[in-house]
Amino acid sequence: MKANWHPQILQVFHEQGLGFECVSRGEVEHVLATLKGIDRKRILYTPNFAPRAEYAWAVEQGIWVTLDNLHPLQKWPELFTGRDLFVRIDTGHGRGHHDKVRTAGVHSKFGVPLFEVEELERLAKAAGAKIVGLHAHTGSGVFTVDNWQTVGDTLTALTQRFRDVRTVDLGGGLGVPERLGQQGVLLTEFGATLAAIKAAHPKLTLWIEPGRYLVAEAGVLLAQVTQLKGKGEVHYVGVATGMNSLIRPALYGAHHEILNLTRLDDVATEVVNVVGPICESGDLLGVDRLLPPSEEGDVLLIATAGAYSRSMSSRYNLRDPAPEFVI
Amino acid sequence: MKANWHPQILQVFHEQGLGFECVSRGEVEHVLATLKGIDRKRILYTPNFAPRAEYAWAVEQGIWVTLDNLHPLQKWPELFTGRDLFVRIDTGHGRGHHDKVRTAGVHSKFGVPLFEVEELERLAKAAGAKIVGLHAHTGSGVFTVDNWQTVGDTLTALTQRFRDVRTVDLGGGLGVPERLGQQGVLLTEFGATLAAIKAAHPKLTLWIEPGRYLVAEAGVLLAQVTQLKGKGEVHYVGVATGMNSLIRPALYGAHHEILNLTRLDDVATEVVNVVGPICESGDLLGVDRLLPPSEEGDVLLIATAGAYSRSMSSRYNLRDPAPEFVI
Repeated sequence: MKANWHPQILQVFHEQGLGFECVSRGEVEHVLATLKGIDRKRILYTPNFAPRAEYAWAVEQGIWVTLDNLHPLQKWPELFTGRDLFVRIDTGHGRGHHDKVRTAGVHSKFGVPLFEVEELERLAKAAGAKIVGLHAHTGSGVFTVDNWQTVGDTLTALTQRFRDVRTVDLGGGLGVPERLGQQGVLLTEFGATLAAIKAAHPKLTLWIEPGRYLVAEAGVLLAQVTQLKGKGEVHYVGVATGMNSLIRPALYGAHHEILNLTRLDDVATEVVNVVGPICESGDLLGVDRLLPPSEEGDVLLIATAGAYSRSMSSRYNLRDPAPEFVI
Repeated sequence: MKANWHPQILQVFHEQGLGFECVSRGEVEHVLATLKGIDRKRILYTPNFAPRAEYAWAVEQGIWVTLDNLHPLQKWPELFTGRDLFVRIDTGHGRGHHDKVRTAGVHSKFGVPLFEVEELERLAKAAGAKIVGLHAHTGSGVFTVDNWQTVGDTLTALTQRFRDVRTVDLGGGLGVPERLGQQGVLLTEFGATLAAIKAAHPKLTLWIEPGRYLVAEAGVLLAQVTQLKGKGEVHYVGVATGMNSLIRPALYGAHHEILNLTRLDDVATEVVNVVGPICESGDLLGVDRLLPPSEEGDVLLIATAGAYSRSMSSRYNLRDPAPEFVI
């Protein structure tokens, strides 16, 4: 689980036995403050290009620390002497719904590329550090399970070289259905893939990072209609919040289904752009959506907003993002 | 001037006699709290799809209130009875450096389109409101002054219909040079254009909104190098902050010049991607930049960060954006 969540959500996942992946000191501190007495080994710290001081702090916390670059071992080997480490590997092929969420390949800033593993081995040895976990995450919004099969093949093959590895983290990115009728990753297929990897490598512990898959559909953004506008063929339905609460459409062109909760029984007869109140043309929550005719005061539901909405929110235009309620 | 700025900057511009455009109640309150006793007529409130309650509040503040849609006059005429109003007109042609900053045309959510001015006139009359100002803003990053000539022609022509108009606001969007050697809008040409409009319409007061043009080059983002990474041909220079402080490259593909302040005298021999510490592949501050070889601890300067950086910042990944210092 990514760790920048509402305390109540962290609590539920903690009770369910899940661990927490943190990508900054702030996220680690958020988990430690929220889940008093948590087993530190349920926290995986996986930063990217974090400064030395953050690693120096993290290794003292008793949490799992991930390197995703050789630089820390080259320049700060003394930090890692006698430590057990995870390493994030770039398996070479990025996946996902948009360039900006592909997180492997030379054009991604994440991970140690495969052609550096020999140097990784040498540097870890020289530092006196033990590599006990291997991790990869190829991107977000991946719908075919062969992705995790390939990642599993690559990482388990590396355990021949890194003999102390006990844990292999196959990453996340499980595709969430974002359009009505769309099929998400088939969990039966996903489970079978994991089971096959486990059967071939019974001594390894397998981890996965299904964060967004678990919470995206569990959260929605609700916004009241403020004003309507027609510009010839193009109709606009304005709502009280926009990219300050949910920047995914503006940033990635992400699709979020939109429903008019006030008019669920009305026939959808209008094609509209749903827009927020932010002073940016990109403040579009939905383009060319077929909806029943809306009226001021109607409540629109913007779906699959349970992940990467509050966490990416801002006070742009000095408009507070939508408050967050957990039921 | 956009109004979500640091108090010291507001103070300086206030002393220089500039006015403040506010796009939310929060921005109006920020100006009122910062500039005690400010002449309320130096505040222009120009929201987009704001809810009725915000307009009801704004008309009581004694500030200039802009409608950019007929909806308020159609649905809430009683709010505007006896009031002097500005109206934002969509002149029909968006301009600017990216789709997301073009703010006119039917595919933009801003402004009253020209084919609605007859209805605007009728609705304002029925509400008992007087239209005393006309406003247009076609987009950001516009480098040719014919833009403001066209806007001026359109708005001044409308004063034949709207006889109470005393102020014409030609908007902003003056292109800021973002690459070394690039030429910004020529102020002499811009001034000549304004002078010609003024000469033809001596009774009108002309306003312009040069906000970003004034401040973009006055601010920089400074970030220390944290780690270096090479992936074959692709080299990465990681710095301590990224899209949490400056989202323009990720959001618009905006270009910001980058210099290594620590190695100003070194020869630029490396082509690198400059990336932040945020867990997103889009967290790129600069792609394929020619820089001298960098070392951990070097200070990089990311230029033209004086506008739309702090205001669009977030705590994504629970990483605080760079603190803001005003000299």
